[in-house]
Amino acid sequence: MFAQSLVGAAAAVAAHLETLLAEHQALPVVEAMGYATRGGKALRGYLVLESARLHGVPEGHAIWPACAIEAVHAYSLVHDDLPCMDDDDLRRGLPTVHRKWDEATAVLAGDALQALGFELVSDPRCHPSGEVRADLALSLARAAGARGMVMGQALDMAAEATDVPLDLAQITALQAGKTGALIRWSAEAGARLAEVDPAPLTAYADRLGLAFQIADDILDVEGDAAMMGKAVGKDAGRGKATFVSLLGLDTAKLRARQLVDEACDALSPYADRAENLRAAARFVISRSN
Amino acid sequence: MFAQSLVGAAAAVAAHLETLLAEHQALPVVEAMGYATRGGKALRGYLVLESARLHGVPEGHAIWPACAIEAVHAYSLVHDDLPCMDDDDLRRGLPTVHRKWDEATAVLAGDALQALGFELVSDPRCHPSGEVRADLALSLARAAGARGMVMGQALDMAAEATDVPLDLAQITALQAGKTGALIRWSAEAGARLAEVDPAPLTAYADRLGLAFQIADDILDVEGDAAMMGKAVGKDAGRGKATFVSLLGLDTAKLRARQLVDEACDALSPYADRAENLRAAARFVISRSN
Repeated sequence: MFAQSLVGAAAAVAAHLETLLAEHQALPVVEAMGYATRGGKALRGYLVLESARLHGVPEGHAIWPACAIEAVHAYSLVHDDLPCMDDDDLRRGLPTVHRKWDEATAVLAGDALQALGFELVSDPRCHPSGEVRADLALSLARAAGARGMVMGQALDMAAEATDVPLDLAQITALQAGKTGALIRWSAEAGARLAEVDPAPLTAYADRLGLAFQIADDILDVEGDAAMMGKAVGKDAGRGKATFVSLLGLDTAKLRARQLVDEACDALSPYADRAENLRAAARFVISRSN
Repeated sequence: MFAQSLVGAAAAVAAHLETLLAEHQALPVVEAMGYATRGGKALRGYLVLESARLHGVPEGHAIWPACAIEAVHAYSLVHDDLPCMDDDDLRRGLPTVHRKWDEATAVLAGDALQALGFELVSDPRCHPSGEVRADLALSLARAAGARGMVMGQALDMAAEATDVPLDLAQITALQAGKTGALIRWSAEAGARLAEVDPAPLTAYADRLGLAFQIADDILDVEGDAAMMGKAVGKDAGRGKATFVSLLGLDTAKLRARQLVDEACDALSPYADRAENLRAAARFVISRSN
């Protein structure tokens, strides 16, 4: 049920993005934009669609912010993979954009994907009322910028430049920005579209985001590159502080499970209707537990 | 009168951006964001403020989109200067961001400046009504993305990869994206804020944008690096097609002057109230004629 629903959402997001990019001029940068958005699980897009469904917002509207967040997420991966950043050759089992094309194409494709994200959340078709409302764009800009995702990346970079490993509070703050901000925005999107209080979704997303990062750190130690479709063991290899290095493997796994339980509990106002979101939370740590 | 007004606008934009960035965490990326937005003429921000003034929109509102366009323009310069793009060491007479910090900081600062731009145009304080309206964000996303500025950059990159120089129609299309799209957005912003037809401003901006690029090509041949605060002679040195290489120096100067006259004429519905915008158009080519 959940697995099918996740695959269906990823296909819907991919098809919509494909249609949008087909309206662009045929250029390597545009081709790279499509390439970078394909092949992922579209978890963030799924959270948008599910939180919209919970609030009775039709998928025809929710698909716009769902594609927006996938475009922004894809931009962040393309830039993260650059030689001057994480210098990764492999992403989702395929060459990264700067390896398949070149660095300039990767910089521009990432830049254009970020702009595309803001174009999609500003589109009146996001809203059942057809209004041109900026609250999605405003919240996304805050989540993506130097007080959200980029702040997390900047903290990460600053930490790598010193020899003092981060402590648990610091790494939690870092991850709340780096991966947490977009996940929170995605989960809240449905409430925002329906103009209702997002509090239960915020509580859900914050726990989910943290569990997600802990799971990622576990996979960096236990995962295998072929299965992950990207390099593993990089953090541990560099002596970088992670949830696993700070908590130990067993405690990290336990903490991830606790967070998922808390995330599921936070959805109690939605009762059984939020089962897909609960399944998404369990899915996030399933590969690492 | 105009010169004073331009300097005043640049100071107002700089002060507002300074205040906004002071609310961010003190990090090298945030410092680089401030650095990248300082020291320019703020021509695009000036166009926003002037077109707003023409429509009776108070500066307290117009300052938001004025800062937004300067943030987006600054992002484009930071990324353009990267080693994998134009590889420039000097900008506005100072080291470029990747030279003063490093490439990773430049990528992230550019990314965050783009997000900041979208945050500012989505802010309800843009609008005298206090409404959360997305039309500024939507139009800016289209101007900045793969159908606007990035398209122009991508066409430029594609042209450099071939040995066939662009013709006049191609270079005009390229520049309409690369520099024209943000200039058009800036000039139209006041009409958009006042919810009136931007047609005269569009006509003005399209001619201004083209004149601006022709002037830039002239300065690349005739300018001197110390006066310009950046490298010159790069395009000519690479045998790249420019308006000067295609038209010759004298015809290029004549065409720039004609375009400025046309730009000024397009503002006739505003009569004398648009004198500052006309002066801005004359200013754009003044250094090259």
